[in-house]
Amino acid sequence: MLDYTHVDGLSAEDIERLRAVYEPLTGSVRELIDATIRTEVDADVVATAKAEIESATARLRGVQRDGAFGIQFGAEGESMPWGNAVIGVRNPTAPPLVIHKEPDGSAWSDFYLGAAFEGPPGHVHGGVSAKILDHVLGDAASKPGVHRLTGTITVRYRRLTPLGRLHSEARITHTDGFKTYATGHIADDTGITVEAEAVFIEPRWARG
Amino acid sequence: MLDYTHVDGLSAEDIERLRAVYEPLTGSVRELIDATIRTEVDADVVATAKAEIESATARLRGVQRDGAFGIQFGAEGESMPWGNAVIGVRNPTAPPLVIHKEPDGSAWSDFYLGAAFEGPPGHVHGGVSAKILDHVLGDAASKPGVHRLTGTITVRYRRLTPLGRLHSEARITHTDGFKTYATGHIADDTGITVEAEAVFIEPRWARG
Repeated sequence: MLDYTHVDGLSAEDIERLRAVYEPLTGSVRELIDATIRTEVDADVVATAKAEIESATARLRGVQRDGAFGIQFGAEGESMPWGNAVIGVRNPTAPPLVIHKEPDGSAWSDFYLGAAFEGPPGHVHGGVSAKILDHVLGDAASKPGVHRLTGTITVRYRRLTPLGRLHSEARITHTDGFKTYATGHIADDTGITVEAEAVFIEPRWARG
Repeated sequence: MLDYTHVDGLSAEDIERLRAVYEPLTGSVRELIDATIRTEVDADVVATAKAEIESATARLRGVQRDGAFGIQFGAEGESMPWGNAVIGVRNPTAPPLVIHKEPDGSAWSDFYLGAAFEGPPGHVHGGVSAKILDHVLGDAASKPGVHRLTGTITVRYRRLTPLGRLHSEARITHTDGFKTYATGHIADDTGITVEAEAVFIEPRWARG
């Protein structure tokens, strides 16, 4: 049901070229999102900005893929989840997280959440913390070529998470057949704000 | 710690005028986000679009509030969480959800998730489902003037949720002092895909 096997055959050079074209565009849209939330300019300035935005959208839609981005693969099997809602380098709504995997399988990321991620005033939306933990724990639970899907996740809020610079990390606690259990948290400068535990399932189609 | 008590004194007319100025701008940025993820235009077209986007951002930043949006209040106590990551009418990364409250306190929303919310190819990111359920259950657990915060939420994935038109609903199951328990789900046309249960806490400062 998931088209994970599609290989686009892009060389490492192709991939770098595409990244150099599209990643800065995504960054400029992230800046625009922040400005759209925080602006207090008058209606006439908004109208001029809106016309520029619509012109840019029309240009970009000149040639576009059908539907969502999906995952492309390079010729050497490199995964390119560039549309992903958490890590996608082409998704302006992703922070995006850059997740580092350690030799022991644990995963961690340092990231910044601004105005676009707000819930309670000045603080991260609880649902945004859950979204990030789902991904970081999922990365800890996965290994190259085996894409594990979340079965169940439980998120506990110790206190509110302030907007700004944050850290998340996760690790596997144990495995049981096709189930992998992971735990992790989000922290600010003074300690853990949200913690999570989850079980991830290796989908039937991916089982050797 | 949360500045929920700040009253901006905007009249109902002021609020409608501000909404008429900023909501269409937000909608145009949502379109741009979708186009940014899906575009396949060449580098020179990307460069032109990027220049237009940066021009729009500079205009909007001409006058802007410090920090995130927070929550404004109208003169009659109307809450304006316009920067919110799930329901904010001024937040281009919010779908946004329009959540309906029934007389029995239950909450529901019909909404659309496109390319910006992708995880597995063609499907909603599991973390996005958790983010939405956190908010819909939280709305079911809250009442006017009492902002309950998530204590713990558990999200169970029955199957993958396809991108497209979706439905979410939630209701209170029981209360126990300052704790309110709620349950809910996300469904596509053929049934429930993700379910959740959570406990919400009435913060100390909000207790009469």
